[in-house]
Amino acid sequence: MQKSVDPELACPVAPVVDIVFSRWTTPILWALHEFGRQRFVELERRLAGITPKVLTQRLRQLERDGLVSRTYHAEVPPRVEYEITDLGASLGPLFAHLSNWADAHLGEVEQARHSYDVGR
Amino acid sequence: MQKSVDPELACPVAPVVDIVFSRWTTPILWALHEFGRQRFVELERRLAGITPKVLTQRLRQLERDGLVSRTYHAEVPPRVEYEITDLGASLGPLFAHLSNWADAHLGEVEQARHSYDVGR
Repeated sequence: MQKSVDPELACPVAPVVDIVFSRWTTPILWALHEFGRQRFVELERRLAGITPKVLTQRLRQLERDGLVSRTYHAEVPPRVEYEITDLGASLGPLFAHLSNWADAHLGEVEQARHSYDVGR
Repeated sequence: MQKSVDPELACPVAPVVDIVFSRWTTPILWALHEFGRQRFVELERRLAGITPKVLTQRLRQLERDGLVSRTYHAEVPPRVEYEITDLGASLGPLFAHLSNWADAHLGEVEQARHSYDVGR
């Protein structure tokens, strides 16, 4: 995400952010975590608004990072399925923590935005 | 981040991702959390690679979200300082969790990438 002048000052969270929170990455991991093994078209339907090109790119990136596995079934027509790996599933508690923070604090964020917008 | 066909299927983590993990947002919050109240130029120096324009935008967004506060000192020349708020500091445990996940699993991600690249 960034190179800092002094490596010790670099944000240690940044590499995880790139891996887990790139645009569309979180919803894809979430959908695979919640709804299990799926075909490309099923994922595409769940993530309304994503283009096939972006979904392909993101799945390839997640596969490369070891968070998602791809299974090719040599049938006619061929069938390809995507599934979260054990490494991907290890993000579960982190997502739960994020979800809890949202429940506890998203209202405060909305309130802050309102005050900011009114005060200008 | 996304609109799903069925709201129940929407990723509940997505709003937090937009607030906390936008590009540069995490390192800014991290720097303010770790090194306390700072002036614009200090932050800019720490976040090597960020442009003043992007830093200004991100700080404004974080101020609007209630995660960062801005204090204007009417001196000559005027002095402006940025500080993390209580709401921003409530992200501390989340960052710690992310940092722990990185310590435990970033090696696996790197290994997966290596295998993927070699296998192609």
